[in-house]
Amino acid sequence: MSPKTTTELLKQLRQVMKSPKYVQEPVQAYIVPSGDAHQSEYIAPCDCRRAFISGFDGSAGTAIVTEQHAAMWTDGRYFLQAAHQMDNNWTLMKMGLKDTPTQEDWLVSVLPEGSKVGVDPFIIPADQWKRMSKALRSAGHDLVPVKENLIDTIWTDCPQRPCKPLITLDLSYTGVSWRDKIVALRSKMAERKVLWFVVTALDEVAWLFNLRGSDVEYNPVFFAYAVIGMNTIRLFIDGDRMMDPAVKEHLQLDSTLEPEFKIQVMPYGSILSELQAVCAGLSPKEKVWLSDKASYALTEAIPKAYRYLTPYTPICIAKAVKNASETEGMRRAHIKDAVALCELFNWLEKEVPKGTVTEIIAADKAEEFRSQQKDFVELSFATISSTGPNGAVIHYKPVPETNRTLSVNEIYLLDSGAQYKDGTTDVTRTMHFGTPSAYEKECFTYVLKGHIAVSAAIFPNGTKGHLLDSFARSALWDCGLDYLHGTGHGVGSFLNVHEGPCGISYKTFADEPLEAGMIVSDEPGYYEDGSFGIRIENVVLVIPAETKYNFKNRGSLTFEPLTLVPIQTKMIDVNLLTQKECNWVNDYHQKCREVIGAELERQGRHEALQWLVRETEPLRVQ
Amino acid sequence: MSPKTTTELLKQLRQVMKSPKYVQEPVQAYIVPSGDAHQSEYIAPCDCRRAFISGFDGSAGTAIVTEQHAAMWTDGRYFLQAAHQMDNNWTLMKMGLKDTPTQEDWLVSVLPEGSKVGVDPFIIPADQWKRMSKALRSAGHDLVPVKENLIDTIWTDCPQRPCKPLITLDLSYTGVSWRDKIVALRSKMAERKVLWFVVTALDEVAWLFNLRGSDVEYNPVFFAYAVIGMNTIRLFIDGDRMMDPAVKEHLQLDSTLEPEFKIQVMPYGSILSELQAVCAGLSPKEKVWLSDKASYALTEAIPKAYRYLTPYTPICIAKAVKNASETEGMRRAHIKDAVALCELFNWLEKEVPKGTVTEIIAADKAEEFRSQQKDFVELSFATISSTGPNGAVIHYKPVPETNRTLSVNEIYLLDSGAQYKDGTTDVTRTMHFGTPSAYEKECFTYVLKGHIAVSAAIFPNGTKGHLLDSFARSALWDCGLDYLHGTGHGVGSFLNVHEGPCGISYKTFADEPLEAGMIVSDEPGYYEDGSFGIRIENVVLVIPAETKYNFKNRGSLTFEPLTLVPIQTKMIDVNLLTQKECNWVNDYHQKCREVIGAELERQGRHEALQWLVRETEPLRVQ
Repeated sequence: MSPKTTTELLKQLRQVMKSPKYVQEPVQAYIVPSGDAHQSEYIAPCDCRRAFISGFDGSAGTAIVTEQHAAMWTDGRYFLQAAHQMDNNWTLMKMGLKDTPTQEDWLVSVLPEGSKVGVDPFIIPADQWKRMSKALRSAGHDLVPVKENLIDTIWTDCPQRPCKPLITLDLSYTGVSWRDKIVALRSKMAERKVLWFVVTALDEVAWLFNLRGSDVEYNPVFFAYAVIGMNTIRLFIDGDRMMDPAVKEHLQLDSTLEPEFKIQVMPYGSILSELQAVCAGLSPKEKVWLSDKASYALTEAIPKAYRYLTPYTPICIAKAVKNASETEGMRRAHIKDAVALCELFNWLEKEVPKGTVTEIIAADKAEEFRSQQKDFVELSFATISSTGPNGAVIHYKPVPETNRTLSVNEIYLLDSGAQYKDGTTDVTRTMHFGTPSAYEKECFTYVLKGHIAVSAAIFPNGTKGHLLDSFARSALWDCGLDYLHGTGHGVGSFLNVHEGPCGISYKTFADEPLEAGMIVSDEPGYYEDGSFGIRIENVVLVIPAETKYNFKNRGSLTFEPLTLVPIQTKMIDVNLLTQKECNWVNDYHQKCREVIGAELERQGRHEALQWLVRETEPLRVQ
Repeated sequence: MSPKTTTELLKQLRQVMKSPKYVQEPVQAYIVPSGDAHQSEYIAPCDCRRAFISGFDGSAGTAIVTEQHAAMWTDGRYFLQAAHQMDNNWTLMKMGLKDTPTQEDWLVSVLPEGSKVGVDPFIIPADQWKRMSKALRSAGHDLVPVKENLIDTIWTDCPQRPCKPLITLDLSYTGVSWRDKIVALRSKMAERKVLWFVVTALDEVAWLFNLRGSDVEYNPVFFAYAVIGMNTIRLFIDGDRMMDPAVKEHLQLDSTLEPEFKIQVMPYGSILSELQAVCAGLSPKEKVWLSDKASYALTEAIPKAYRYLTPYTPICIAKAVKNASETEGMRRAHIKDAVALCELFNWLEKEVPKGTVTEIIAADKAEEFRSQQKDFVELSFATISSTGPNGAVIHYKPVPETNRTLSVNEIYLLDSGAQYKDGTTDVTRTMHFGTPSAYEKECFTYVLKGHIAVSAAIFPNGTKGHLLDSFARSALWDCGLDYLHGTGHGVGSFLNVHEGPCGISYKTFADEPLEAGMIVSDEPGYYEDGSFGIRIENVVLVIPAETKYNFKNRGSLTFEPLTLVPIQTKMIDVNLLTQKECNWVNDYHQKCREVIGAELERQGRHEALQWLVRETEPLRVQ
């Protein structure tokens, strides 16, 4: 792929940064974060402003344009991709490396005295505003809200904001009705003595009302806000989506509900003025609760004395702990997903040697097999189908310019997943269709040891996920190796494939403790720039663990893999495994064979079943 | 030990909380933190205000007294001790347990509307003031500084503030002269564009000037502040200590130095007014650097716009990375310390079966053997000499009321250390002088596995210590066990036995990355209330590690034990060790035998040498 030419765009942006039409006073720098007004990680095309101005379209990154410079901060997953996609106008700031300045420090080092730094107040989270504003102020600069988004002013062919139909989810999927979720939320509000709750994250709105949408690719969400009072429910949503009889019925819009469950539907764009109106009617001690990651615009709408901010909302925390219906749905989804992948890998094993399968063809084939499964909705993220050196581009997505042909000489890494109506999947397997080198096997085996160390870990109730991160790295560290990304993220239930408040990362310090019912990924890796990438990822469910003793009656937890797809034994150097690790692999493969084998049988997929049986032969220590 | 009777004292305190003589307006609550005006962990008797008012004299804890309640927050090390030492007037708040409220939440729950909460502004760190003040304000209360310390007003027999002679350390101990330390500090100040630096921590003042004192027991520090400008040095210190010819010579007080190295000596009590005078002369952009843990009083003395606060000062960070002279000194100190402990354990082995050795006698004997070693100054903390159930009181100190006799039927835990002029030691060994039970051996072996997992860990340069904490717990977690304290702390070089900015803990998130030359403890444990305590502690030096590969050229680190005292093999269940762990123990014991054996030989301590040889027999897997 060739980098996007941004010289002209940057010139235009620098002009509007000084134009009295858009800014009260000229701004010497303009920040373009990745998010949308809901601080979503994945965003609609109309919100891809950072990609528009820079060319870099990874899921995480912040652009800052000054009169002289243009710089992009992104993390280890995207160093190679960003370097490829951006032209010479841009400086890549590699986050997580020792010498990389923070955005604030960099701004202070390049700005002339007394500068103004502009940002769209709807796009920047309040906590980030606060941090940045403080740092800039202490260096004599000012962070200022620019009401009109400056990128939008120069983005002449910006797409429309999507407004697609909604899906209603009944109790068999959600386990809890939206009314009961409102009741639970209000009880959390009462506990904290707050009167109002503002739902700003798209997946929280979707979860709360047991609705799904498709406004953002891969994420079954829809553009909406909600404001929940102790006796009122306001849903801010555009289009005629509320006219759909199924939605009307689901939300009981026409029935004579108790007033406290009556949903008032309001235009999406009226959230700010409605929130201001709510706040105008508040008396002291009446608090409004919202996430400290909500936009600066909405946070500022609430007078400081009335604000109750928390890093994670009660919806975020409740959503993370899956109930029995959701867990069963996730299990079903993962069984179907494994069936699709067994079909795929069986097909690849036959086709790759012919030299006709490209990364794009393999990704399309994976989607085809998945789409044959019941309740398939869409993919849960852009498939990472990468072979050889492309595997080292951690969040690679094959495009015609980079599309490589799979061969028997290179490692193939497939990170993919789907949205089914009963659950969300996310799985990575690394395969070799010929004979892997000793070094490739060695690296793969260290990654596998890390994967097992997390998956088999037993830890006390109340442990935060970041305390498990080093288990995934220990085998790599012993040999001087490592990987520059976290080990795991929360996974939604037919919702976003990345969700808070838990995860397994050396970076995440504000994560909430792991609890039984939470679902996270376990995905250590190893990447060698220019050569290959290895990652082994399962989605795992937090479950209670039986232990010999029970210190302070705290109870223990461990993980149960929901993903049941064979891990290629050909890539394993058995001599590097302990007996315990060897047993783990064999037990896992035995379960894959039983559970997925039965489903392949049921679906009459006999060739894939034979592949599964071959691939789940027990390891033997040599 | 019987609890302190505090009814009358609390009554008096509640009176002065309302007395116009001491407070502008009555305060409904008064906070008594543990620290002194330098936020020291260990404090002089005159600063033991929290112990005076409550009876609880552990090293960490905060008391809050309201009109109705008296509550004490402390951590897992002190739950039992605090419960023993406090009478019924006090409620123990067990920090780290799920249901324990924070001080702020508790205050909000018990205070009448619009309360004032008082605290001594010199004793409360600014960061804590900020957090607490914000929380109280948002609930309608006010945190107010009370100039006169209210405990001092009722503490009629409060001891004098100590003012003991100083020790000067020459280059053979420190490796770097105080002038070169000032030069390095000024260069850090120039980097951050600050003009003034306020040294508030006692160990930072001592380290900067290569001086030591004995104003605080176990900590070779002296009461002083320093204010360093780009061309001036002000040292705030009381008494005639600067009249000592050795000190005069060391600081070159009488010589015609370049003005920028001329030290102005000022009274200790003048720090606040002098700092205010410095600030009065500042123009915008002239910043004053101090720790964000410095007292609220000193922080407030600097107008907000001029403040440059960091969690760790450049002195704290420089002090943590020991140079070659300091490292060699620490090695020498640990060799001498091991000689003393070999003598002690040899003596205990003979004496314990006679039934005449109490915890206090054993602690005294340990001190006696240490005091025979060259350059011994004092102990580095109160010896934890505990047997049987006392071992479960994590920071136990034997007193006549609790003093148990060591026997062949109970586990004995000794956590002790000393200050030598060339280094500071801190070592814990857990011994059985009879036949340990299978369960005791099992628990000991899990703790040992954790100790080895940290000590032998290899990790990338730049890794923070908290990422290693779970390695110490993994073997315990597997069986449902755990311990409620961190795994390691920084250790000073003939300075405080606990020092920042590094450590190994699940709690410490603001720790600085580990670097070669840093020195920390590695001390997992297991404690069973009412039965026994186990801890295995070495002081370890961070050193570069040789690895097979070198990802991103980052380099790797590992630990070298400085402590060289045998770990009792009788307590080890060899069947629970891996071959690698077994080798670690044998290699460690081999090194103890070589290094300490040679020194025992040199000192003519033949019986202790025989004990060492017996105790370092290699383990054999059965």
